[in-house]
Amino acid sequence: MDKIIAEGSLILLHFDLRRQWLLRVVVGRDFHSHKGYIKLGDLVGKPFGCEITSSTLDRFWALRPTTHDLIMHTVRQTQIMYPKDIGLIILKLSLTSGAKVLEIGTGSGAMTVAAAMAVRESGHVDTYEVRPEFVEIAEKNLKRASLAEYVTIHQTDAAKGIEGEGYDAAIIDVGDPWPLIPLVHGALLGGAPVMSFSPTFNQVERSTETFGKVGFVNVHTLECFIREIRAETGRTRPATMMIGHTGYMTFAQKVLPTTSEQSKPSPA
Amino acid sequence: MDKIIAEGSLILLHFDLRRQWLLRVVVGRDFHSHKGYIKLGDLVGKPFGCEITSSTLDRFWALRPTTHDLIMHTVRQTQIMYPKDIGLIILKLSLTSGAKVLEIGTGSGAMTVAAAMAVRESGHVDTYEVRPEFVEIAEKNLKRASLAEYVTIHQTDAAKGIEGEGYDAAIIDVGDPWPLIPLVHGALLGGAPVMSFSPTFNQVERSTETFGKVGFVNVHTLECFIREIRAETGRTRPATMMIGHTGYMTFAQKVLPTTSEQSKPSPA
Amino acid sequence: MDKIIAEGSLILLHFDLRRQWLLRVVVGRDFHSHKGYIKLGDLVGKPFGCEITSSTLDRFWALRPTTHDLIMHTVRQTQIMYPKDIGLIILKLSLTSGAKVLEIGTGSGAMTVAAAMAVRESGHVDTYEVRPEFVEIAEKNLKRASLAEYVTIHQTDAAKGIEGEGYDAAIIDVGDPWPLIPLVHGALLGGAPVMSFSPTFNQVERSTETFGKVGFVNVHTLECFIREIRAETGRTRPATMMIGHTGYMTFAQKVLPTTSEQSKPSPA
Amino acid sequence: MDKIIAEGSLILLHFDLRRQWLLRVVVGRDFHSHKGYIKLGDLVGKPFGCEITSSTLDRFWALRPTTHDLIMHTVRQTQIMYPKDIGLIILKLSLTSGAKVLEIGTGSGAMTVAAAMAVRESGHVDTYEVRPEFVEIAEKNLKRASLAEYVTIHQTDAAKGIEGEGYDAAIIDVGDPWPLIPLVHGALLGGAPVMSFSPTFNQVERSTETFGKVGFVNVHTLECFIREIRAETGRTRPATMMIGHTGYMTFAQKVLPTTSEQSKPSPA
Repeated sequence: MDKIIAEGSLILLHFDLRRQWLLRVVVGRDFHSHKGYIKLGDLVGKPFGCEITSSTLDRFWALRPTTHDLIMHTVRQTQIMYPKDIGLIILKLSLTSGAKVLEIGTGSGAMTVAAAMAVRESGHVDTYEVRPEFVEIAEKNLKRASLAEYVTIHQTDAAKGIEGEGYDAAIIDVGDPWPLIPLVHGALLGGAPVMSFSPTFNQVERSTETFGKVGFVNVHTLECFIREIRAETGRTRPATMMIGHTGYMTFAQKVLPTTSEQSKPSPA
Repeated sequence: MDKIIAEGSLILLHFDLRRQWLLRVVVGRDFHSHKGYIKLGDLVGKPFGCEITSSTLDRFWALRPTTHDLIMHTVRQTQIMYPKDIGLIILKLSLTSGAKVLEIGTGSGAMTVAAAMAVRESGHVDTYEVRPEFVEIAEKNLKRASLAEYVTIHQTDAAKGIEGEGYDAAIIDVGDPWPLIPLVHGALLGGAPVMSFSPTFNQVERSTETFGKVGFVNVHTLECFIREIRAETGRTRPATMMIGHTGYMTFAQKVLPTTSEQSKPSPA
Repeated sequence: MDKIIAEGSLILLHFDLRRQWLLRVVVGRDFHSHKGYIKLGDLVGKPFGCEITSSTLDRFWALRPTTHDLIMHTVRQTQIMYPKDIGLIILKLSLTSGAKVLEIGTGSGAMTVAAAMAVRESGHVDTYEVRPEFVEIAEKNLKRASLAEYVTIHQTDAAKGIEGEGYDAAIIDVGDPWPLIPLVHGALLGGAPVMSFSPTFNQVERSTETFGKVGFVNVHTLECFIREIRAETGRTRPATMMIGHTGYMTFAQKVLPTTSEQSKPSPA
Repeated sequence: MDKIIAEGSLILLHFDLRRQWLLRVVVGRDFHSHKGYIKLGDLVGKPFGCEITSSTLDRFWALRPTTHDLIMHTVRQTQIMYPKDIGLIILKLSLTSGAKVLEIGTGSGAMTVAAAMAVRESGHVDTYEVRPEFVEIAEKNLKRASLAEYVTIHQTDAAKGIEGEGYDAAIIDVGDPWPLIPLVHGALLGGAPVMSFSPTFNQVERSTETFGKVGFVNVHTLECFIREIRAETGRTRPATMMIGHTGYMTFAQKVLPTTSEQSKPSPA
């Protein structure tokens, strides 16, 4: 990765744990904060990790943005998926370089950004979003993260049909996932994984039923919690507030229709 | 990815949610279970996702192993890191294709497998492990996952020196991380992230202090919980038991030495 | 409370955190363990908190049993309610001295023991249990805890009718609580609280609906988690395993039928 | 308990789940809210659980305040202990009618209110608080809950000495509990339980050490989490935010000095 900040580089400008900004370095553009302003152009030619001093002589640092930062600094008009969930999805769906991924429900594109980061250079994400205002936001988020080339946004209702096929993995993040599940079955490779994200128990229950009926096995649901620990010498303690719920992740894997009838009924 | 199972393919043989095996398909090899045996060679030429019937006419499925499966089916002699933590680490450390990663404390190689999956084809993992018995296990786990080419295992004490430099990210998973932290600082690119994994709060506290002293900012600690939901029509409920603790993840980002002295002291 | 252990006293015999027994001191009775035997009669006349040495010279202590110990050492044939939940119920239902409590679903009597401890001397618990084998176990547990006089076990189906009325609080712990909720409404004092305990979200949903329809307000559901911290100098950490789920507690308070029609429809 | 609201009765005035007030009914006093005003005197002579209509014709209900309500509506200038923790403490410390309880660190008196509710009529709470402003608040909270007669507030530093002895249980809620632990040992009955409440890991570790050194066994620490479930037909889900941390509860039980030297060293 680049060692030196260039015109157009994306940086995480860090002041402290609560004050961080994802910014593009543009010569002539100033960044204004409660701690004075910074001439972003001054960073060009300096190494990532360098210190920069604001007009009020306060110290900031120009860090390398991580995938986590790209997700959390997504411009959003919707509830986004969070890193605690996305991280697990990346592992459970094997979102790695070269994977061909189907996503239904782009939203603001936080999951899309993470999926594109995971599958580039040789992979691709086809994502479906019916609402034009979200398509627009997701496009902006992908462009800002320099990931647009790895993603095709289909501005259409996936329930009307999915163009591609042979996907290695699928992500569903819509309120009514069940009508989409048979379509996703058709679009996935045999044995490939899918995840449906749902805030309510009712959605989980109905998705689980549907997965079981239309040719998926290994159907199971997880929820993930994250808690911050405030480490300070002699007084280390967890943070007072935490996110209690985002959504449940229901995972499944596609199986192919049985060709013989010689086996017993299966328990699961 | 491959659609068809070949001699030598790795499959996740699925019976039900609790009974799954990561197996290599070898002609002439049988898999024996409580539900009869399966001739693995019969799978050659069939598609992933196909059903296979055992000698007792029980149904199994040959699924595609995911990164999650590779982690969870790691042969182990140590406590391994779990997907709930690894997933977040992948995002917070930007472990994506092309990244050059330093790992200290290979252990059984579960994190190593996940990191290699994330950074291949063009990235690489340099991992340090001083105990030969763990090096051997990690090697086996990497070979089984066909990831050995993306990893160099250094069988030496990293505290004696790290050969490489210019790493995009670093992972520390040892009992006494603090002496290693300055070495990791030297080996990382400016602005790059590091994570140290520690079971105890005392380790977190001391690591946090050390990160702050030797040139890291954005130092913060997270713990992650995961809970299974048992979805069943009309009686959906969380699972009775859950993992209450694995370890804390302390994250930080490298900053470069200050070259000027004109700034104010920083709050964090 | 008694300072001195007498013939018939209940003690918590403590060896270490994992090995503790709730025992009645009876002259002539021996307690046998993996660490030799103890003549329980030797404790008569000694103070609570004293040490006692087994035949193998191992040290045990005769502690005062707490309400928590009475609950956890309940002889059981059913899933019991746990202290993490019972403690909150005691506060939310104001189970304090003098309260008149209705319980439906005695089970093994763990909640009954706790309720009786909370309301004695002047309060009373009426508990309904239809299965004779549970009535028998609950009776034993109450007798052992010297609480039988504060409890009446009604071996009948509460759905057929509740004898008493004017209850200060009600506890429902049955699989199908909804038909009981109108009966409980009839038996409670105006404004009084009720809690229904349910393992599944489907039960919670249906109970919540029913409470809202038959004259309860302030209907809300909580779940409670508990985690053990293993504190040891220099290596303090949470325990590896924890209980992920017991049940959900749905709370509500009885309101009286509206006598006038002049108010607006209510939001909740 | 009283069925009819009288002049001076304490009520929980309920509008909806988020809008509830703990109020004393006083003839001539009005309660003003965003939904008009209520003449509290109109409630006199009506039953608890009745509906009352505000000047804007909005519906409110006059519920019976529970112990939970008394705790949560405590007037406070400090962080208080919460019902999730207090409930468990009541069970683990056997705070039941007749118990004689020692509390060090009254604070705003939330735990004191709960303890007094649990031990009345025949029990008593001796509570120590050195800061006069907290003594004043705690007194107000106890008076409002009509519990003042069951509590003696000692406005002095407990470290200088505890007057009473023979306590059935002790509660410590101060920043530096360790110097107090030997004094608490002296004040407790043999075998009796104590709980020390601490926000940080460091306090837990040091308290645990001290308990072990000065004559306590069964030393263990718990943390408790609570999560709200929003039950709504067809879209039941946990609440988005939850409290991630209040404090850790370290429990122990007093043992008496060993009189003989014949036993083996103990493991715990």
